[in-house]
Amino acid sequence: MHRALLLIAALVAINVSRYYSPLLAALGFAVIGFLASDALIPRVSHSFIKIGCFGKDLSKPGHPVIPESIGAISATVYLFIMFFYIPFLFYKYLVVITPGGGHRDASVMQSPVSDEYRFPHGKMSEYLSAVLCLQSTVLLGIADDLFDLRWRHKFFLPAVAAIPLLVVYYVDFGVTHVLIPDVIQRWLGTSKTIFNLGALYYVYMASMAIFCPNSINILAGVNGLEVGQSIVLGIVFLINDSLYLLLGNEASKEAHLFSAILIIPFLGVAFSLWKWNRWPAKVFVGDTFCYFAGMIFSVVGILGHFSKTTLIFFIPQTFNFAYSCPQLFGFVPCPRHRMPRFNEADGLLYPSRANLVEKPPKKMFVPVLKLLSSLKLIDLEVDSQSGAVKSCSNMTLINLVLVWFGPAREDKLCNRILAIQFTIGLCAIVARHSIGSIIFGHDNIQFL
Amino acid sequence: MHRALLLIAALVAINVSRYYSPLLAALGFAVIGFLASDALIPRVSHSFIKIGCFGKDLSKPGHPVIPESIGAISATVYLFIMFFYIPFLFYKYLVVITPGGGHRDASVMQSPVSDEYRFPHGKMSEYLSAVLCLQSTVLLGIADDLFDLRWRHKFFLPAVAAIPLLVVYYVDFGVTHVLIPDVIQRWLGTSKTIFNLGALYYVYMASMAIFCPNSINILAGVNGLEVGQSIVLGIVFLINDSLYLLLGNEASKEAHLFSAILIIPFLGVAFSLWKWNRWPAKVFVGDTFCYFAGMIFSVVGILGHFSKTTLIFFIPQTFNFAYSCPQLFGFVPCPRHRMPRFNEADGLLYPSRANLVEKPPKKMFVPVLKLLSSLKLIDLEVDSQSGAVKSCSNMTLINLVLVWFGPAREDKLCNRILAIQFTIGLCAIVARHSIGSIIFGHDNIQFL
Repeated sequence: MHRALLLIAALVAINVSRYYSPLLAALGFAVIGFLASDALIPRVSHSFIKIGCFGKDLSKPGHPVIPESIGAISATVYLFIMFFYIPFLFYKYLVVITPGGGHRDASVMQSPVSDEYRFPHGKMSEYLSAVLCLQSTVLLGIADDLFDLRWRHKFFLPAVAAIPLLVVYYVDFGVTHVLIPDVIQRWLGTSKTIFNLGALYYVYMASMAIFCPNSINILAGVNGLEVGQSIVLGIVFLINDSLYLLLGNEASKEAHLFSAILIIPFLGVAFSLWKWNRWPAKVFVGDTFCYFAGMIFSVVGILGHFSKTTLIFFIPQTFNFAYSCPQLFGFVPCPRHRMPRFNEADGLLYPSRANLVEKPPKKMFVPVLKLLSSLKLIDLEVDSQSGAVKSCSNMTLINLVLVWFGPAREDKLCNRILAIQFTIGLCAIVARHSIGSIIFGHDNIQFL
Repeated sequence: MHRALLLIAALVAINVSRYYSPLLAALGFAVIGFLASDALIPRVSHSFIKIGCFGKDLSKPGHPVIPESIGAISATVYLFIMFFYIPFLFYKYLVVITPGGGHRDASVMQSPVSDEYRFPHGKMSEYLSAVLCLQSTVLLGIADDLFDLRWRHKFFLPAVAAIPLLVVYYVDFGVTHVLIPDVIQRWLGTSKTIFNLGALYYVYMASMAIFCPNSINILAGVNGLEVGQSIVLGIVFLINDSLYLLLGNEASKEAHLFSAILIIPFLGVAFSLWKWNRWPAKVFVGDTFCYFAGMIFSVVGILGHFSKTTLIFFIPQTFNFAYSCPQLFGFVPCPRHRMPRFNEADGLLYPSRANLVEKPPKKMFVPVLKLLSSLKLIDLEVDSQSGAVKSCSNMTLINLVLVWFGPAREDKLCNRILAIQFTIGLCAIVARHSIGSIIFGHDNIQFL
C-alpha cells in the first residue's frame, strides 16, 4: 500500500518537475529506483546462489550462505533509470524546439530559437559518457565478480571503465589546466594563475577513477559497510552541492547540478541495497557495487571539476588505505582475512590480530609498531619479559574502531564507522570553504 | 610476426585516417578488434568452463564439453574499440576548434569557426547512444547467459536494451513520420507524402530491436552459423552502404557512413569469433553475441532510417521464423531440440524429425503438412497403407537445407546456408534499388 503511494508521489514529482527543476525528477527517479531494486533483490537472489554466486557470512553463528554480487542488480536498475531520466533532464529545451511538445513559453516558440533554448547536445554527450562509464564499470565489475580476477588486474579495471569518460572529455571539453594556489604563486614569484598539465591531466583523471572505487572496495568486511559508506559519501556530496546551488556562481552551479543529478538517484538504489545488506545481511553486495559506487563519485568529481574536493571527502577511505600499507607491502605480516574476529559466545566482534611470533615483522618496522601503539593506533601485545612483540591488531579502520571503542555487535560497529565518516565529511566541507578559500584566494561560494 | 605487421598496418591506417576518411580508422580498429579478441578468446575460455559456462557439442562424437558465451568477449572488445574510435571519428572538428591540435587548415583556424567546423555534438550523442544501447544489450545478454532466463522474458530483453537508443532518438531527433509510397498515395487519392506515426513509431523501433537479435538467435544449432550469418549480414549491409556512399545524395551518405562506421569494426571482432566457433567449434558464442550482433543491425537501421531495407536483408531469418511458427505455436509437435541429427557412423548431419505418431499434429493442419511436402518444404513420412502421417522433418531452415541438398558434414551445411543467405542478400539489394524506387517513386541513389 505505502509502496503504491510512494510510486504515485514519485510519478507526480517527475511529471511536475518540468515546471520547477530537474532535481525534482531526480528525486522521483530515486524513489522509483528504490522500489524497483527493492522488489528485484528478493526475487532474483536465489538465482545468484544457483549459479554459484554466494559467500559465507563469517561473522554469524554457523556461517550462513548468502547470495553474493547482488549490488549488480541495484547498479543495473540505476543505469536504466538514468536512461528514462534523459527527456526530463532536457525538458526545458525539448518543449521549445519540437513543435507540439508544450506551450510553456509561446513567445519564445514564435521568435527564432534563442541561444538559451538551443538543445545542449554538449551537455547530453557529457551525460551519456558518464552513463557509459558507469555501465562499463558494471560490466567489468561483473567480470570481476564472476571470474575472481587477480588483485593486480582488478586494481586497474576502473581505469579501463573510465575510458569513455576520458575520451569524451578529450573531444568535448579538453581543458587540462589546473589553478595555481595563491600561496604557491607567491612562493614561485610567478603571476601565472593556471598551469597546463596536458596529457598528465588524463593520467590524473584515470588515477581518480582508480582511487575512488578501490578505496571503497577495501573498506569492507562488516555487514552494510560498503553500501553505508557510499550513502554517507552521497549525502556529504549532496550537502556540498546544495551549498553551491544556493550560494554559488553560475558556472559552479551547473557543475554541482550535474553532480546532484547523478547522486540523488544513486542514493535511491543504494538505500534499497542497504535494506538487504545491513546487519544481519541477507545479501552481499559484491565488487560490482563497490566499483560502481566509487565510479559515481569519480565521475561527478571529474566532470564537475572538483576532484580535489572529492579527494578530501574520501579521507576515511584514504586513511584506511594508508593505514593498511604496512601490511599490504609486507612490513607487517598480513593474514588472508583481516576482518574482525567473531566471538560466538557473546556475539560481538573483536579486533582480529596478526601473529608476530610465527612471522615476525621487518626488524626496522618494530619501533614504528611501538610508536603506533603509544599513539593508540594499534593494539600491540608485547612479551613482558623479553620485550619482543607478540601480536598486533590488523591495520584496518574497522579494527582500529574496535580497538578504540571496544568490542561491539556488527551493526553497532558499522554505525560507529559511518558516524565517524559522516563527521569527517562535515568537517571536510567546512575546511573546504574556509581553508580552501584562503589557499586559492577565492571560493566559488559567495557567503552572504 | 604477421600479427605484428597487421597491428602496425592498423595503427598506420588509424593515424593517416585524419587526411582521408574515418572509414580508414574503422578498418584499422577492425584489425585491432580482430587481434585483441583473437588473443583473448583462447586465454580466457578455460575461466568460462571453470565458472560453469559450458555446453556439450551434440554434433560431435563423444559430445565434447566446450566453453559457452564466448561471444561476450568479442562484444566487450568491440565496445572498448568504439570508445577509442571517438577522437578519430570527430577529428575533422577537433583540429580546428582546439588550439594546438594540428594545422590542417590554418586559414579556417584564424577565421571565426565556420558552421561546417562546429563540433557536431548532435552526431556524438547519436553515436554514444548507439554504443550505450549495444552495451546494454551485452549486459542483459550476459544476464541471460548466466541465468538462463525463460523464453518469454528473454524475447523482450532487446527492447529493454534499446531504451537508451529510443530515448536519445526522442530528445535528439524526434522524427516520427514515414513516407507514403506513390502507389498507396494514388490508391488513397491523397496528396500527402508523409504520415506521422507518433508514439507508434517508437513501438515500431522497439519491434525492430526485438526482431533482429531474436531472429539471429533462433537461426542456430550448427557450428559457426550464428557468427557466420552475422558476418554475411554485415557484408550485405556494407555493400548497400557503399552504393550510397558512392552514388547517394548528401543526407543518405551521412546515414550510411554511420552504418559503415558501426559495421566495419563489428566485422573485425566477428571474424575472430568465427575463427574459434567454426567447425569443429572450440567455443560456443552464447546468446550475448546473437543479441549483440542483431542489435548492431537494428541500430544502424533505426538511426540510418533504413529500417525497411534492414528487414529485407533479414529475409532468411524471417523465413526461418515464419517456417518455425507451426512448431512454435503447437500445430505440429515440437521436440526440445530441433537441431540436425548427428550420425556418428558417417559423421554427417541428417534432418531431425518430429514424431507425429506419439504426438499427432492438430488435425486441421495435416492437409497443410501434405501441401508443404508436395512443395518440397518438408520431408513428410506417410504410412503407405493408412495414409496417416508418421513423421516430418523439423521446421527450421537448417533442416530444410538438409532436406533439399541431402545429408552433409556440419561445415558444408553451414557454408551452404551462408551461401544461400548471401545470394538472397545480393538479390535484396538489387530489388531494393529497382522495385523500391518504383514503389516510392524515387531512390536515394542516383545511377549514372
